[in-house]
This record gives sequence, structure tokens and C-alpha cells, in this order.
Amino acid sequence: MTPRSLRVACREGSFAGYTAGHAKGFVQANICILPRDWAEDFLLFCQRNPQPCPLLSRSDVGSWSLPELGEDIDIRSDVPRYHVFREGRFDAEVADITDLWRNDLVTFAMGCSFSFEEALVDAGLTLRFLDRGEVAGVYETTMRAKPAGRYDAPLLMTMRPFTPADAIRAIQITSRFPNVHGAPVHLGDPGQIGVELDNRYRGVGSGEVLPGEIPLFWACGLTPQLAVMTAKPPICITHAPSSMLFTDIRNASLAAL
Amino acid sequence: MTPRSLRVACREGSFAGYTAGHAKGFVQANICILPRDWAEDFLLFCQRNPQPCPLLSRSDVGSWSLPELGEDIDIRSDVPRYHVFREGRFDAEVADITDLWRNDLVTFAMGCSFSFEEALVDAGLTLRFLDRGEVAGVYETTMRAKPAGRYDAPLLMTMRPFTPADAIRAIQITSRFPNVHGAPVHLGDPGQIGVELDNRYRGVGSGEVLPGEIPLFWACGLTPQLAVMTAKPPICITHAPSSMLFTDIRNASLAAL
Repeated sequence: MTPRSLRVACREGSFAGYTAGHAKGFVQANICILPRDWAEDFLLFCQRNPQPCPLLSRSDVGSWSLPELGEDIDIRSDVPRYHVFREGRFDAEVADITDLWRNDLVTFAMGCSFSFEEALVDAGLTLRFLDRGEVAGVYETTMRAKPAGRYDAPLLMTMRPFTPADAIRAIQITSRFPNVHGAPVHLGDPGQIGVELDNRYRGVGSGEVLPGEIPLFWACGLTPQLAVMTAKPPICITHAPSSMLFTDIRNASLAAL
Repeated sequence: MTPRSLRVACREGSFAGYTAGHAKGFVQANICILPRDWAEDFLLFCQRNPQPCPLLSRSDVGSWSLPELGEDIDIRSDVPRYHVFREGRFDAEVADITDLWRNDLVTFAMGCSFSFEEALVDAGLTLRFLDRGEVAGVYETTMRAKPAGRYDAPLLMTMRPFTPADAIRAIQITSRFPNVHGAPVHLGDPGQIGVELDNRYRGVGSGEVLPGEIPLFWACGLTPQLAVMTAKPPICITHAPSSMLFTDIRNASLAAL
């Protein structure tokens, strides 16, 4: 199925699941919708932190379209499931936000690591957690994102283990994709960034590192979400975890080199 | 001084020292001169092992010029000092090989890591051994170069230590320079490639790795030299260690991306 037909399925309610493995070759976007008063600082937060917040598109105020990512996108209905937060606290999971739409809402769409994971697999590298239907382990680190206005958060990272030769290749490949987190931020000793591999953020993902492997850490798209939760805007709407927006952008088209 | 004027100084005998720090911004080349009967397999060895043997130019048989690297080069006199090997054993160090020249000799010029070290320093990375007037530590590893005919050798590597963030940057930068060894071959645990950091090949260079740093290992241009010594051709002439050929090629012009 094409990204467009998958969006139609989301819109009609016939697709409401996890998006991994669907519309291969196309970018899936993290979504964060904020009131206009909270949007400028968030744009600045993205500008200051391109690795955790690789902004692909920011809508016009009040507009539910994202023409840069797909001609027919209606962000009120085209994400499989949404999470609604009020004052920084989870309020509800819904399949459609048309009833919640307001003329002051602004949508931010950010790249996600699924795109570079596809490039890694295409290059012959092994991501064991994918074979098991898991995601990369997520960790809260002692590094911090650069604050902007009310937004301030620790830098969350995803971890993927590789043999040394594959680690070098993974750095080369992901460096080509600055719009989907880009190169790793750290490699080697997890203790240098305050991480214990068994202690994952909200228990998300796989922390397995086999003997002879080295852990690589990439900036994670949950960082801006944590910054927003901490800032406590009156309303914030995001995609539900692992249920992202299908876009018409090809992963390969994001390659910088 | 320009590379050309330095070559003239070598030719006239007024320059016979180490070449590091001279003609900044220009490629310095490792030189290996072999009889015609030994040249085809060596070319194949370079083709099969581009990381340790990044071939910049191979002369015509019997020709002492290398027009790709500098219009006026006379390889019989333009290297500061030469080492002459016979049957794989060191025979003499000389300042000029005009008397030794034969119509069947073939010159191979290979890139060297000085070029990417300049790019690393220009990017703000620290190479402590440079500040101390040393070179990177050299190690014999348990990895092997791909053999070609009579040429067969372990893969020798140079080691440079970095903090994790600088290690990622160093991989990005050196990946741009495939003609001067390119990306590292290994990083992290030296034991995985049979290396003890205190046990350097012929005692060459610095093996210092500070706490919080990770060692990165690049393929080393001494690998082809060791392969030639092992193959024992009747004659082989190389540059003397750290006394290379000044070329007119700019380091930056070798960047692939």
C-alpha cells in the first residue's frame, strides 16, 4: 500500500495500528500539535536541537494540511491514533482529532529513526531488535537538550549495538540523514552519559549488547515530547507511540550526500 | 615553501629531513619502487587493499616522472631520503637513487594519513601526539590484508584516541578521504584485533589512550612495505620513514564529498 492509501485507511478508521513495516521506503513522521502561543518557542527548540528534533515541516497556524509531506494530508484524521495531553498530563487516546481542532493549533512533523534504520538494513547491517519486532532501547541521559523558552529536557537517546566494523559503517550511513536524527551522539561506555543499559526510559525497547559489540547512541524523538510534557501547555496532541504519520517523502530523498 | 621548491631543495640536497609540518595543505606520498616483474602483483595488492594502500599514482615502466602528482617530479632525487632493500633486507639509506635507476623500475605513490590528520586538526579535533612531535602509534593486528601473488601481510594499523563525540566526528571526516586511508577499520577494544596498546610495531608512535577516550584504528601505509619485505624482491626502494614525497596535490582536493 502507498503512503496515501494508508492515510486514507487511517482517515476512514480501517488502519489504527503500529506503522513500522508499512509503506517501506517512505518517511514516517513524529507529530506534535501545539497552540500558537506555545509554537514559537517550540520552533526555536527544534532549531537549537536538530538531532533530537529533526523538523521536516511546520504547518501554518490553524491549518490542518502539511503540503510538504503529502498533498492531501489532513492532520486531524490521518494519524492512526493520537495521544492528547492537557497541562502536561496524558488525557486520552483517540483515532481522530477533528472535534478537538482549533484555529490556533500548529502542527510540527519531525523525522524518525525508522528512516535511517531502513538505510542500515539495506546496507546489510543487522538490527536484531527489528527481527524480534522490538524497537531500539531508549535511555534518559545526563546530557541535556539546549533549552528554548519554556522547553527544557534531558537528551533522550536510542541505543543500537554493532560490531566495531559495523559501528563505523553505521556512523557513515546515518551521517547522510540529518533530517532523521543523523549521526550518533555517543558511542562506547554508557556510563559517560549516565546510562545503565538495563534501565530503559519507560522500559521502551531492547538494551541487549552482545560480547564484542559496542553500543551507539542516537538522539531520540521522545526528547521534544518530554520537553513539552514538562512545559505543560494547556493542550498538546501527538501521535500515539509507534503510530506515526505516513508521508509521501522517500527515505532516500533525505540523504544529504 | 611550496611543494615544488621543497622538491628542488631535496634534489639539490639542502632538504633531507622529516617532511611533517612542511608544505601544509599538500599531500605527501609514500613511495615504493619495484622492478617491472614485481609491479603487476603489487598493483593488484593495492587494488585489493585500498585502505592500507591508497594508490595515488603508478609511473610508466622505467619512467622517473609522476605527472599526476607534480609536473617536474624526478623520483630519483626528489624524496628527502630513500631506503634501499635487497631481497627484503635493508641495505642502505641514500639521498639520491639516480645511480641505482634501471629501465625496468616502476614507482608507486600512495596517500598517507598526514592528509586526514590535517583535516581532523582543521575541524578542531586534538591529536596530542602531534603537539609532542610524535606520530600515531602503529600496531600489527590479527587482521590480514588480502593477498595478491607474492604479496601477503598482516594489516598494520595506526591508532588515534578520541572522546566518543570526537570519535564520531573523526569517522565522518576521514570517510571523506578514501585516497589517504579513509575511515577507521576498527574502534574500541584493541584485543578484538589482537592489539596490546603498549606493544607497538617497531616501537613506532604514541599508544596513549586517556580515561574516557576510545581508540580508533586506521589501516596503515606500512602494510604494503611489510608485504614487499616479506616477498623479497631483488630490489625495492622506498622513502625513508617520515621523509615522503612532496606533491602538488592539495589535501582538500582529495575529499570525496
